[in-house]
Amino acid sequence: MAQKPSIPKGTRDFSPVQMKRRNYIFDSIRSVFQSFGYQPIETPAIEMLDTLLGKYGEEGDRLIFKILNSGHYSSKIPKETLEELSNSPEVDPAVSYKLTSSISEKALRYDLTVPFARYVVQHRNDITFPFKRYQLQPVWRADRPQKGRYREFYQCDVDVIGSDSLLNELELIQIIDTVFTKLNTRILIKLNNRKILTGISEIIGHPDKIIDITTAIDKIDKIGLEKVNEELNNKGLPKEAIDKLQPILTLSGDYISKLINLREVLSDSDIGLQGISEMQIIYEMVRQLNLNTLVELDLTLARGLNYYTGAIIEVKSLEVEIGSICGGGRYDNLTGIFGLPDVSGVGVSFGADRIYDVLDQSNGFPEHTATTTQVLIMNFGDEEIRSALLFASELRSSGISTEIYPDPAKMKKQMSYANYHQIPIVVIAGKNELEKKQLEIKNMKTGEQIAVLFEEMVPFLKRILF
Amino acid sequence: MAQKPSIPKGTRDFSPVQMKRRNYIFDSIRSVFQSFGYQPIETPAIEMLDTLLGKYGEEGDRLIFKILNSGHYSSKIPKETLEELSNSPEVDPAVSYKLTSSISEKALRYDLTVPFARYVVQHRNDITFPFKRYQLQPVWRADRPQKGRYREFYQCDVDVIGSDSLLNELELIQIIDTVFTKLNTRILIKLNNRKILTGISEIIGHPDKIIDITTAIDKIDKIGLEKVNEELNNKGLPKEAIDKLQPILTLSGDYISKLINLREVLSDSDIGLQGISEMQIIYEMVRQLNLNTLVELDLTLARGLNYYTGAIIEVKSLEVEIGSICGGGRYDNLTGIFGLPDVSGVGVSFGADRIYDVLDQSNGFPEHTATTTQVLIMNFGDEEIRSALLFASELRSSGISTEIYPDPAKMKKQMSYANYHQIPIVVIAGKNELEKKQLEIKNMKTGEQIAVLFEEMVPFLKRILF
Repeated sequence: MAQKPSIPKGTRDFSPVQMKRRNYIFDSIRSVFQSFGYQPIETPAIEMLDTLLGKYGEEGDRLIFKILNSGHYSSKIPKETLEELSNSPEVDPAVSYKLTSSISEKALRYDLTVPFARYVVQHRNDITFPFKRYQLQPVWRADRPQKGRYREFYQCDVDVIGSDSLLNELELIQIIDTVFTKLNTRILIKLNNRKILTGISEIIGHPDKIIDITTAIDKIDKIGLEKVNEELNNKGLPKEAIDKLQPILTLSGDYISKLINLREVLSDSDIGLQGISEMQIIYEMVRQLNLNTLVELDLTLARGLNYYTGAIIEVKSLEVEIGSICGGGRYDNLTGIFGLPDVSGVGVSFGADRIYDVLDQSNGFPEHTATTTQVLIMNFGDEEIRSALLFASELRSSGISTEIYPDPAKMKKQMSYANYHQIPIVVIAGKNELEKKQLEIKNMKTGEQIAVLFEEMVPFLKRILF
Repeated sequence: MAQKPSIPKGTRDFSPVQMKRRNYIFDSIRSVFQSFGYQPIETPAIEMLDTLLGKYGEEGDRLIFKILNSGHYSSKIPKETLEELSNSPEVDPAVSYKLTSSISEKALRYDLTVPFARYVVQHRNDITFPFKRYQLQPVWRADRPQKGRYREFYQCDVDVIGSDSLLNELELIQIIDTVFTKLNTRILIKLNNRKILTGISEIIGHPDKIIDITTAIDKIDKIGLEKVNEELNNKGLPKEAIDKLQPILTLSGDYISKLINLREVLSDSDIGLQGISEMQIIYEMVRQLNLNTLVELDLTLARGLNYYTGAIIEVKSLEVEIGSICGGGRYDNLTGIFGLPDVSGVGVSFGADRIYDVLDQSNGFPEHTATTTQVLIMNFGDEEIRSALLFASELRSSGISTEIYPDPAKMKKQMSYANYHQIPIVVIAGKNELEKKQLEIKNMKTGEQIAVLFEEMVPFLKRILF
């Protein structure tokens, strides 16, 4: 009968200590979102497969977890699909795809953006725009699991839709700054703008090569300008275009000097100039706010080029070598796929799992995340338990989390339970103590033990614990 | 292109107002669990199908949501399954079952109990017993959706395992009492004991009829003793057994008088007497604790007879007619199915969705669950926005959640946004106000509007808001 239990690869159990640390991250992020007036929503883990398919590219479609229809679903498989399955000795991958469409109509959420777009369209009559929402929920992807990449992981998304104002971009930068200041970990915010990238493509006349170009810029520091030019040539960019690119490839200096140089290079591109002017306005506002975080202009930032139309945002940890820990941007047509055009939005997503890894590797979790129970009351058996119950109730109503050890076990066992769970205080109220209307209070950190009267228990413990 | 978006039946989106109310329930439950020293864990939404199958009965097996394997999964379907599928014109349900086992090896969590048992066995070397854990996560069931029954819903489980002490049963009753006192809604706690039910079967000599008997007892008030006896006769219980049952069927009075009468009837059943004695100990302790909640002995309580071995607990709302809103019991062999025998546990599960319905229908949500943003600062355009940004930062650092309206829209539009979101305070700082180093503060509830100096803003708003 006995099975050796395990969980699917790429998924994780979270122990109490991990949970407390994760909650520390989630609570910090949530409280900042709330302080900026964002509203929580949640969507179901299960969406209609149609809602998700075609939104994440071909690769994404394959990585969506599909749910088998319930009941006698196999009776719905078309005859010809069955024939194809039976006839081909080596089954053609396309047959799996066909079979899926006849036996699965639901799937697990793949990200929070598409469900959010679906939510907005479905509930548009109940929403007042601008709509500022946040959403902290897990998503699932059938990716090949590897270090730091999971099949179930949390996204913490914050978006505002229905407003074109650059104030929203600014606010997201403020939110990022406040979250990581709160988490006490150093970061760098990188900004780019899709319009600047479009401007560059316009100037050199090769819009299809924009990814090759950003990849090349990214390599300058490592391999040098000459090698980068060679690579661009190999990728099929003509000499003339490469020449025009030179001032962009060698762009340097701070945020503002980069913008000034770019303005010259892109002077013939209206959209490029618009991107530059947006980045300048954002920068001016950021400067006035005296953020703790450095904000950098980085033209190599090309995330989400399929859907971002304005600012692109990415956050790097300055403490641990790891991929981006937060990112997002402006999208002008999120809800168009569901029939509601012209709703502009901007948002970022915090990667809670990676932030966990950063804090873990840099010893960034505060001490209090290691404990929840503050007081353990020892169990000496039926006689003494009545008093223990009353003490525990009194402590809990005073806001002190309290356990009674459930069995009258040996003192040593009860003490080691307190140690294991890092419970800072043990209350000892045996027959002797009770007769004297006293209890012994043991500080598990210092080893000190003090007798106090019943009525002094709560004030005494409050002094130690708070 | 445009799809009309929808979500799978039996699932739900949660709007900001619903989320705040749900979080009010979750936060209340969680804080009580923590005050009693329970530790949070989480398990993945996706479990191995093998882990879940066979744990919830045949019906349960069918209601588990199965996940389709990734990749070219159809190449793994055995030839003979394909033949069976192709040959039978009306496909035999058993074929769906066979097909499932070759194309699905993962499934969605069906409850929190089996994953918890799996967790304990898998991590037994990292756990110190007694292990007090709580877990608040959604579960999924392919049940037919109907009013109050969803395909995705939350369970809030609290269990202690590795301790036989009745103190744990008491603690769960205290937790129930504290949670519902905190939520300010009146309930009744019903208790039963599997050992008493076993004792009754022993006495009348028909262990297979225990469900019929509890169902019959449940009907006494409605249809009377005579009709109940008739029904028992129809169900195949011999006259002699029905005669022996009479004192149990007519059992009345309070908790203790019921126990005294039962003790006489079950005097020949050791296990029955043990159950009675357990219920008496629990009652004595409950009485000393002065709970707010009434505790009742109810022999008709027969939930989870497959696995409960001692106390059975169920909570009914006294405010709204609805099924049980919390329930659980003692199980002696939770982890046996995964190869770890003799781990006794006891726990209850709070039904957050039903508790939501109770509070909703009895107007039980406190007013503060309707709002998150406390202050809206009006947007008058580029000139004034710089001051607005600084005011907002100052308010947020003082713990006041603050939004700036993102666009310089008409005042009327900005005001109606504040109204819609029930934001209690609007700050007006236009050109005139700024020149006088003042701002106008409008109380949206009373309509009052007052001018205050910059430096008075925070103390003034703190007085109003806290």
